[in-house]
Amino acid sequence: MSDLIYEGKAKKVFKGLEPHQYVLYFKDDATAFNAQKKDVIESKGILNQKIASQVFQYLENHEVQTHFIKSLSDREMLVEAVHIIPVEVIVRNITAGSLCKRLGIEENIKLDKPLIEFCLKSDALGDPIMMEEHIYIMNLATHEEIQHIRHEALKINTLLQKLFDDLGITLADFKLEFGKTQAGKIVLADEITPDGCRLWDQATGKILDKDRFRKDLGGLAEAYQEVLTRMTEKALA
Amino acid sequence: MSDLIYEGKAKKVFKGLEPHQYVLYFKDDATAFNAQKKDVIESKGILNQKIASQVFQYLENHEVQTHFIKSLSDREMLVEAVHIIPVEVIVRNITAGSLCKRLGIEENIKLDKPLIEFCLKSDALGDPIMMEEHIYIMNLATHEEIQHIRHEALKINTLLQKLFDDLGITLADFKLEFGKTQAGKIVLADEITPDGCRLWDQATGKILDKDRFRKDLGGLAEAYQEVLTRMTEKALA
Repeated sequence: MSDLIYEGKAKKVFKGLEPHQYVLYFKDDATAFNAQKKDVIESKGILNQKIASQVFQYLENHEVQTHFIKSLSDREMLVEAVHIIPVEVIVRNITAGSLCKRLGIEENIKLDKPLIEFCLKSDALGDPIMMEEHIYIMNLATHEEIQHIRHEALKINTLLQKLFDDLGITLADFKLEFGKTQAGKIVLADEITPDGCRLWDQATGKILDKDRFRKDLGGLAEAYQEVLTRMTEKALA
Repeated sequence: MSDLIYEGKAKKVFKGLEPHQYVLYFKDDATAFNAQKKDVIESKGILNQKIASQVFQYLENHEVQTHFIKSLSDREMLVEAVHIIPVEVIVRNITAGSLCKRLGIEENIKLDKPLIEFCLKSDALGDPIMMEEHIYIMNLATHEEIQHIRHEALKINTLLQKLFDDLGITLADFKLEFGKTQAGKIVLADEITPDGCRLWDQATGKILDKDRFRKDLGGLAEAYQEVLTRMTEKALA
């Protein structure tokens, strides 16, 4: 394996063999509440790499530009090297999680239209929520870039809602990160996995995402495996 | 005095003698950091009532609609009865305070244009910052009402910057609350005092606002008196 560039909470990023490529290595570490809660969940990294690869391939098939090139091994994914824009983009279809805790909103309310929230990607500050204006004051992205990101986030939401709905799963919310390529193009980056989505089984209401860890429900790997199995059986078009 | 309707951190609200009128009674209590820090500062209520009355009168003279009717006594102000919209409106000209702490932004940077932030008025939740979309999801105000509030907040900012500049004081930021009258009109409500503004003496940089209390600088009443004296001497037009 080549040089380590960066180690995050759930992934390591290595230099790829070709220029302008990275290798993402998916770890088994699980963290929540800004890493105040930690554990290692065997095979989570493998499951996430496989889920993310299928999701990226599905989005690419539907004309969403992503950093994904190909899956290399159980835990490794080859991606285009990007400079991550330090803004987490949260898309919400149903109220849950930090939205409810922060503002005292009831959980499980279907929103009239998808809500896009922006958070500053900063562990030290606890990923604080931002207004769009704060992004410009901090020079994190241009107005044009944010409008592009909004547009892409809504398109991705529509595609993912369909994908998961076909698997009998409700997509309540999810987190995206975008990156800028060497050529200055903005593409979907990071990962889309149950670590950063809220996925609820439509038949039983069973939680199939990282809330199993946050809420000490157990069975996290089994839940992620369930998502992967449904995806693989459906053979995403 | 008539019936107590509500007691806040710095004011009591009583029913007025006429229908659709309230009497605001300005207390000497000082609080900060969501009331985790508390003190009583003798005469603060008197100074704030006098400053707020002059500021409201000045804004009314410049065609800003407010709840202000008249000053009744040292600590009492007669106002139109309004239903307070539970959204705190913060206007920032220079970076300071919670903006810098929350997002790690440097203090004392002049913004290219005024920044308007919205916070949910909730002591229990620590007045969390909101995106405009959250206001609509929570049905706190309509889109039309928020656009009106934005417009008024910017107009008030321009007027207050001029007012304080004429007194040799820089207005870094301030907090506004708006209320809805019986007739459904949205007017500026609550108070404008050094409790909710950042005011810096232009000649010396001396802090003339509640940051003296937050930062344990002492001399809060003297600083508020300085603001009031300059206002009174200038005989606001």
